Amino acid sequence: MSSQAPHPTLLIPGPIEFDDAVLQSMSHYSESHVGAGFVKIFGETLSLLRQVVRSTDPNAQPYIINGSGTLGWDLVAANLVEAGEDVLVLSSGYFGDRFADCLTQYGAKVTKLDGPVGGVPSPAEIEKALSEKKYKLVTATHVDTSTGVLFDLKTLVQSVKKVSPDTLVIADGVCSVACEELAFDDWGLDGVITAGQKAIGAPAGLSISFFSGRAVDVAHNRKIPAAAYFANMKNWTPIMKNYEAGKPSYFSTPSPQLIHALNTAFKQLLANGIEPRIAKHVEVSDYVKKSIADLGLKPVASKKEDQSHAMTAIYLPEGVGATDVLPKLLSKGVIFAAGLHATIGPKYIRFGHMGISAVNSNRGDIDKALNALKESLAECGYKA
Amino acid sequence: MSSQAPHPTLLIPGPIEFDDAVLQSMSHYSESHVGAGFVKIFGETLSLLRQVVRSTDPNAQPYIINGSGTLGWDLVAANLVEAGEDVLVLSSGYFGDRFADCLTQYGAKVTKLDGPVGGVPSPAEIEKALSEKKYKLVTATHVDTSTGVLFDLKTLVQSVKKVSPDTLVIADGVCSVACEELAFDDWGLDGVITAGQKAIGAPAGLSISFFSGRAVDVAHNRKIPAAAYFANMKNWTPIMKNYEAGKPSYFSTPSPQLIHALNTAFKQLLANGIEPRIAKHVEVSDYVKKSIADLGLKPVASKKEDQSHAMTAIYLPEGVGATDVLPKLLSKGVIFAAGLHATIGPKYIRFGHMGISAVNSNRGDIDKALNALKESLAECGYKA
Repeated sequence: MSSQAPHPTLLIPGPIEFDDAVLQSMSHYSESHVGAGFVKIFGETLSLLRQVVRSTDPNAQPYIINGSGTLGWDLVAANLVEAGEDVLVLSSGYFGDRFADCLTQYGAKVTKLDGPVGGVPSPAEIEKALSEKKYKLVTATHVDTSTGVLFDLKTLVQSVKKVSPDTLVIADGVCSVACEELAFDDWGLDGVITAGQKAIGAPAGLSISFFSGRAVDVAHNRKIPAAAYFANMKNWTPIMKNYEAGKPSYFSTPSPQLIHALNTAFKQLLANGIEPRIAKHVEVSDYVKKSIADLGLKPVASKKEDQSHAMTAIYLPEGVGATDVLPKLLSKGVIFAAGLHATIGPKYIRFGHMGISAVNSNRGDIDKALNALKESLAECGYKA
Repeated sequence: MSSQAPHPTLLIPGPIEFDDAVLQSMSHYSESHVGAGFVKIFGETLSLLRQVVRSTDPNAQPYIINGSGTLGWDLVAANLVEAGEDVLVLSSGYFGDRFADCLTQYGAKVTKLDGPVGGVPSPAEIEKALSEKKYKLVTATHVDTSTGVLFDLKTLVQSVKKVSPDTLVIADGVCSVACEELAFDDWGLDGVITAGQKAIGAPAGLSISFFSGRAVDVAHNRKIPAAAYFANMKNWTPIMKNYEAGKPSYFSTPSPQLIHALNTAFKQLLANGIEPRIAKHVEVSDYVKKSIADLGLKPVASKKEDQSHAMTAIYLPEGVGATDVLPKLLSKGVIFAAGLHATIGPKYIRFGHMGISAVNSNRGDIDKALNALKESLAECGYKA
């Protein structure tokens, strides 16, 4: 029995439903951001992030900063690239495009490779691009929340190591960390940026990122200092190192309540190892995709290998609009998200099946949502 | 009877103790950041901020963004100044110096006027500086949390309007908003940046700022676009306007839980008007200053007119160090903060008397702290 007030089930691609214990951690009494109790919790949370991204490299560095997923782009753009340097952005939707915008804003020279709607740029295109120019870094959106397209990071790193080994590989893992396979050390990534409110299952309000030793070196040894202060990694690296070493340290006041909630979420998701959690997300995603197909609907991500396990972007039947379906879903106690893609915006809806709604089948969230979708479409005159 | 677990009373200059209702707002069930319920709460919270800073100017603009007080400096430095432009920074301690660092990091040409330790730069010095050079903006720390020094913003604006009317006047109100007299419109300020975790009494994790119409115009009509993305006001202005108009809007996911808590805190502090709240802070501050004097101790802010009502930085008696006193205070259930000033660091401690601890005398927080201080000093061998 949940301690939460009755409310519609939130199944958008983040924020997601909270576990009671995570939510209760949010109402922790006030404590000093440099007091022994909080220092221990924050330090531990940073160390847990290493486990979440599967890294044991002592030179790699976790950062947890008040902010959001967006701020992670700033960390990359402000610190790892100097004005005029080339960056290759691999985009499979709105969020890849936005990452490119952020890099451009900071003065990077961005080359963007777009996948087709619902797909990813091809490996051949990527290798060609990498061989034509020396890129300071390449970025890819692991799961683009606008399309539900999954990007194959592992193969990308292999290509980069082969063609352009000095190029840093940075993943936008906002909608993938804690629900998609991700092995920071084994794959050889240089950065993953994420946020608390998606598969991690913590409340929004934190920028969570993890960089390799060589990425941190790039940030700390720039030719021209980063024109950023809050998003300047040089200001944060010593703070994060101190907290993880159990020493209080101050650059800017962290949010003890958000950190407590994140600590609880991390401990829950690591309790049985992260692999079973990933497997469960795959199982639930497969079930959702099959149920969608049984309803005669198609996912935006057309190929099986490009389909994320965090969420499904679903094309609506001809003649049915998102503004028809979403209110009907809400009346049945289910919240999905509208489309968020320039080309296909009103033609599809987004169903997030991450975190507790996926992992805890006893809640019945997934079937509730699928039934509500079926009924809502029927009310719109659609027959499967 | 508080619903919070027993804990030492937090009387540092932020974060501060929470009211139960504020804390309970933090554990609001998950909801969509673009859903009707949250849009209403966020929009209302933005409007309440206008009341908190006493502005009715429809051209002035509130911003509430995941972050911290520090991020407010970035908003100013990234948006209101172009590289190479002159800025006059009026400093009365560590936080004035840090504001200067942030501005410099973004390329501003900073002239810094420092007050003596425990004081402010003199009006004559300030007028002289303003008449010597054309400054794009002048900044002042309303209350410097490192020293407890209060800066006279009203007189500053008068000087600027007389000597250099085009210069924008920006206040760092992190430790002053909701406890010090502040009249945005009447005084003619162009910006106030603050955070939730000080006198406002909300949890840390939010950057809260308010800019005049002409400051917003400067941000939106730069010669060279701001090299910032998350801290770029152009990205946030339409979002804030939409939420306040009741329309969902997306640039980066806000933190619904923090916004709920801030909404509750704003409603509480505005319930009886903000003036009685300010008056209560003055009364409590006077009482603390008198009690400190009775103990034979001196505040760092030496002149009455330079003393903040948010906090008191207290010189320790000769031979007594902060590392002696602070653990003794903690053993009596009271948390004060260590010194944070380059010159006098270990020689003083900081007592925050803001928010619920000041306003709700029934809690007895202030006397508890003063008694604990007296006893702790006695245990250190000091006799008043």
